[in-house]
Amino acid sequence: MTYCVAMKLKNGILFGSDTRTNAGVDQVATVSKMHILESKQKKITIVMLSAGNLSLSQLVVERLKQNTKGKDKLKNIFMAKNMHEAVSIVGREIRSIYKDNADHLKNHNVDFNLSLIVGGQIGKEEPRLFNMYSAGNFIEATTETPYFQIGETKYGKPIIDRVLNNHLSEKEAIKCLLVSFDSTIKSNISVGTPIDLFFYKQNSFSSKGKYRVVEGDEYFENIKQSWSDGIRSLFNQLP
Amino acid sequence: MTYCVAMKLKNGILFGSDTRTNAGVDQVATVSKMHILESKQKKITIVMLSAGNLSLSQLVVERLKQNTKGKDKLKNIFMAKNMHEAVSIVGREIRSIYKDNADHLKNHNVDFNLSLIVGGQIGKEEPRLFNMYSAGNFIEATTETPYFQIGETKYGKPIIDRVLNNHLSEKEAIKCLLVSFDSTIKSNISVGTPIDLFFYKQNSFSSKGKYRVVEGDEYFENIKQSWSDGIRSLFNQLP
Repeated sequence: MTYCVAMKLKNGILFGSDTRTNAGVDQVATVSKMHILESKQKKITIVMLSAGNLSLSQLVVERLKQNTKGKDKLKNIFMAKNMHEAVSIVGREIRSIYKDNADHLKNHNVDFNLSLIVGGQIGKEEPRLFNMYSAGNFIEATTETPYFQIGETKYGKPIIDRVLNNHLSEKEAIKCLLVSFDSTIKSNISVGTPIDLFFYKQNSFSSKGKYRVVEGDEYFENIKQSWSDGIRSLFNQLP
Repeated sequence: MTYCVAMKLKNGILFGSDTRTNAGVDQVATVSKMHILESKQKKITIVMLSAGNLSLSQLVVERLKQNTKGKDKLKNIFMAKNMHEAVSIVGREIRSIYKDNADHLKNHNVDFNLSLIVGGQIGKEEPRLFNMYSAGNFIEATTETPYFQIGETKYGKPIIDRVLNNHLSEKEAIKCLLVSFDSTIKSNISVGTPIDLFFYKQNSFSSKGKYRVVEGDEYFENIKQSWSDGIRSLFNQLP
């Protein structure tokens, strides 16, 4: 499985994804699920987090990348005028991949299972964040619910529900995201480090600052330990 | 959906279950999912928590109750010599219900979905705790993992994983259970109060002390508020 989460903040979007992939317990590997398409010149930065069948998510990303070389407005994500257009291009690609693959997968009892979080900024529009389903349809994050999760979403949801709001600073959001990952990793073996982290800062049009939190990362260990100790002591203090 | 949890402690077993049942969002009701079969005279107390299809879990309980009037060793749970025999009787009942119902359900695209937590004590044997599946098979709780959850298990698992061990006192376990319910209820609308709580005390052979935590219950509100404030302040203190 997978755990990915993205949070829309007042000055950008924070993205996080684990890197564990498995096809059965005897085939476990480390694969990044964070993909960034960017064109500084065209003022486009699009971040995609993927969950579900890895062969499908890799295919979507590959095709989107290839298509940036072409001139088809309906396929070239760098020709999108705003994030809604960009996400529509991703949805179209998913539907085309469904057409080519779904029946073949079904022959082998494999579901067409793919979900994506897509966020970023194009031109002067403010950053926007979307959640895409296997059917190629999508929803957009709102002020009331400024985050999306995909994959193993449940373990790490309570902490987000308790602390996230769209006034949270970048640093606080990173703390929240890491605690959410820690809770998920502790309770579910199919989610694992390293964690890819990226805060897209509004109007930066840059993927600089993408960071990989590895096992033993000083700050993450610190967060894990403080949280674990804190939870136990908080628990002991409860009436 | 449902959330039920049971924890084996050093001097008994703590049981908790929510009471929300729903068949679609427009059919939501309050139903207890905690069922106790007891015979003081025979030194038997068996507690069952149920998740899944309500018509099936009610049928299991009804049949088990009816069968306590009969003399069939393979069906009368009050004739069981130990908890393993008792749980086998429950499993047999589930399989018989499967035989009568599964095909009919399938005609209406309904899965045969039923899971139970069964725990209690018979005679001089120490209290034992089991988790039963739709197939009528079951596993027993161990020292390393002294708890079971059924239903919407994921949201409330992190807190249990962090604090539960089998040296926990009854009071601490109740705190842990209520925090686990609070986290689940906050993140999932299909789980709701009231919560049925029961601590079965070893050798008591009594269901006295079964308690219903209703919305506005002073202690639960206190726990919820303290936990929520504590989490936020712990979060703010994180480096």
